[in-house]
Formats: sequence, structure tokens, C-alpha cells
Amino acid sequence: MSPRHPAVAEALRLHRARGRDAAHATLLEGPHLVAAAVAAGVALGTVFVVADDAAGRDLAVRGRGDAVVVDEATLRRLGTTETPQSPVAVISVPPPAVSVGGRVIVAWGVADPGNCGTLIRIAAAFGYGFLAGPQCAEPWSPKVLRSAAGAHFALSLGRIAAVDEARAGGRILVATVARGGAVPGPLPDAAAILVGNEAHGLPDDVVAAADRRVTIPTSGLVESLNAAVAGAIVAYLGAAGPGTNLPVP
Amino acid sequence: MSPRHPAVAEALRLHRARGRDAAHATLLEGPHLVAAAVAAGVALGTVFVVADDAAGRDLAVRGRGDAVVVDEATLRRLGTTETPQSPVAVISVPPPAVSVGGRVIVAWGVADPGNCGTLIRIAAAFGYGFLAGPQCAEPWSPKVLRSAAGAHFALSLGRIAAVDEARAGGRILVATVARGGAVPGPLPDAAAILVGNEAHGLPDDVVAAADRRVTIPTSGLVESLNAAVAGAIVAYLGAAGPGTNLPVP
Repeated sequence: MSPRHPAVAEALRLHRARGRDAAHATLLEGPHLVAAAVAAGVALGTVFVVADDAAGRDLAVRGRGDAVVVDEATLRRLGTTETPQSPVAVISVPPPAVSVGGRVIVAWGVADPGNCGTLIRIAAAFGYGFLAGPQCAEPWSPKVLRSAAGAHFALSLGRIAAVDEARAGGRILVATVARGGAVPGPLPDAAAILVGNEAHGLPDDVVAAADRRVTIPTSGLVESLNAAVAGAIVAYLGAAGPGTNLPVP
Repeated sequence: MSPRHPAVAEALRLHRARGRDAAHATLLEGPHLVAAAVAAGVALGTVFVVADDAAGRDLAVRGRGDAVVVDEATLRRLGTTETPQSPVAVISVPPPAVSVGGRVIVAWGVADPGNCGTLIRIAAAFGYGFLAGPQCAEPWSPKVLRSAAGAHFALSLGRIAAVDEARAGGRILVATVARGGAVPGPLPDAAAILVGNEAHGLPDDVVAAADRRVTIPTSGLVESLNAAVAGAIVAYLGAAGPGTNLPVP
């Protein structure tokens, strides 16, 4: 297929945030992510596969997508990694979930797509929903999708513009702060863990609005923990322990 | 200064593992990392600064380095990020530390430089040393240095080729495994936490050699946790609690 084929041109527009917003669609790269989407019942759009990728073609069938065979050069253009793997699939971005109950992780200004995706994976791993706050990396960008490794399809994923929106369902707001908070521990079933920007943490007004502040004790030898790591520890401790919904391994 | 200047050519060779091995040297990029090295008493070699970077020049003086003014184009070539920040400094790679006591995190086949660097930062944050096992990303590569955000200079960092070397100082070996292990908790002062490859985990023989196996309970909605996240939770719980050396925040 020519790289000038309309389906290729349409897919290439999804590399940019503006293109994704306009089409309400994004790209999944590689067999792992596409399989995770199909397993979760997500309907695929166009599925670009290289000629010898029988498994990719099978995923297209199971995901009710339109398989389109492309050459290696076109696959590389469609991918956003240095060495993209077949297939690359177009999917619709679902509307933000209106999550009203249960625990959530709120990424507030988590600008790095890798950290944002890791937080989505952590949320799913520990039975939380995920809310993207202001200045958060775009949850459905190919980089965030890759970093979350399929977790997008395993949780409720929404967006909020003001911190009080995280209170839906009676949640308490728990701010992770670099110093001065309580040692993290078990949280009520209705809790929102707020994780801030990698360099600047949470804005002062968000910290002030929170019901609790938690700080992970550290040796003091490094400035701070990675945002995703801090979120992981607070989320795990919040959901683990007595009354947990996390099964014994 | 011409990009053909010998100091620039020497520094460019440090972009490759072979060049770093031959010169026992690496590159620090940006004011944060260079400042962390200087604060830890590390002697700088050549320090490349752009003309208007007075703070970079000051770091060169404090780090006893040789400041060399370069143009923006040369700085971009010296850096390994898309938009490198001045200064870029050459430092000697210290010989591996022979760590005989205390807790350590062992990265065994953690191939991703970002994960390796995050584990080094986690180790420093929770008062652990760090040992790079076989097939681990090279700890002193610019990518790992960047991801660890200065933590290299705050801990003991060694290498091991066989798992029993982690037993030095009477450490017990704690393997993090995806299923079937005990719930993680406090660890003795002499413990080595083994973290495995992102996709394949720890090799069977390493798991078999360990004294304990731990598994972080999860919802089952995602396949596994990120290697660095799993290491962080096990390391934090290992060092926190009664008798901890982690101060109250």
C-alpha cells in the first residue's frame, strides 16, 4: 500500500494531539497493546500490519478491524517508537468516564507521559480508577498508552478540571507532599490520591484543599521520589492491609 | 570552540558504552546533575558551557573542572537529550563499590535505563546500596544518570556477576516474583532485594537461590507491575516500620 493511501494519512494525523482531539481516536502500537484492547472488547478501526504478521491479522479479525497491509517503511512512519512492531491499530478514544465511587489516583500536572502511563498501570494494579487533572500528559497519547501497557482498558479513566470534582462519591482528598505530611497507610474505600508534577509537586491551593497530606519517609539522601513511585507506594498502602480488595498473591 | 576540538571529540566518544569503558569516564548533562556531583565532592573533568551560562562556569570552578565554552550547536551534539542544557561535564566513573553491609537493591537484568536509574534513586531514597547484576543497563550511562537524578552520588554502587555475591555481609536474598511469594514487609538490616527483567522477571535459578520470595498483591487487572515500582514498594516496606532508619517526615 502506498504511504499516500488515505488511511495512512489519517493515521499519521493521530501522532499529534490536535489530530487525536479532532478524530476522537488514537494509535495502539505493537501486539501487546492491541491484544490488550481486543481482550477488553475494544473495537479496532484500521489495523496496519506487515505482510508476514499473521498474528496481527488475527487480532484485526478478533477486534472487528480492517486489516491493511503496509510495507516496513510505512509501518515505521506510523509508529512513534524507533522500531515499531506490527500491528499498529486505530481505536476510538472513549469519552471520559464519570467515576463516582471507589478509590482513584489523580494525576495533577504529571507532565511526563511515562510517569502518567505508569500511574495508570499502578491504578489498575491496585484497583483504583484514574483521573487526569490539569496539565497532565494526555492519557490517550501513544506514549502514555505504551507506558501503561494495556491498563487503560482495565480501569475507569476520567478527567477533572477542578480538585473538588475528585470528591464525587464522597471521596476524601489525600495530597502526596514532599515533606510535612503523615506517614502513608490504609485509606477509606472512598479516597482520591493526588499526585503532583515531577519538579514542582502539587500546587499550594490543591494541597490546601486536601483533607489529608501524606509524605513517604526517606533517607534524605535524594531530593524527592519519582512522582509515579510516590503514587505507587501511597496507592498500595492505601488499598493493602485489613479489608483490602487485593487478593493474597 | 570548534566542534573538532580534541576535548569535544573525546567527550563524544563517551556517548557509547565502549568509549566510556575505555576512558573510565561518562557525561553529566544539565545543571541539576552537575550540581549534585559537585555537592557530593566529585571532581569534574572538562565542563562544556555555553557563553552565557555563568552558573555552569561557577559549577566548573567549584568542581575543579576545566570550563570550555562551546556554541549551542556543539552543546546539542554533546548532549544525549533532544534539548540538552548547559553545562555538560565529563567525570571519571568510580570503581565499583565493594559493598559488604546493609541493605541493597540488586537490579538483575533490568535492561531499561529509565528503570535502572529509577531503582538507583529509590535505593538512595530508602537508604539502600545498589548492585547491578548481569544484563542490567549500564549504571553510568547518560540515560541512567539522568533517570537517577543525582542519586549515583548518594549511595554505594557496585556490580555483581553471580547472585551469591549479594550475600556479602550476611545478607539474605529476597526475590521479587510476580506470583506465589509472601506479602512484602519489614526486612532485616542485611537484606538484598532482587528485582528482575521488565518482561521476564528474575531467572528461575536466581529465584531458587533466594531465601525469600515476595509478591505484591494486585487486583489482577494488569499483568504485572513495572520493575521499578515493584522494587520501590518492597524496598520501602523493607526499610519502614519499627527499627527503621527512615526518619519521620
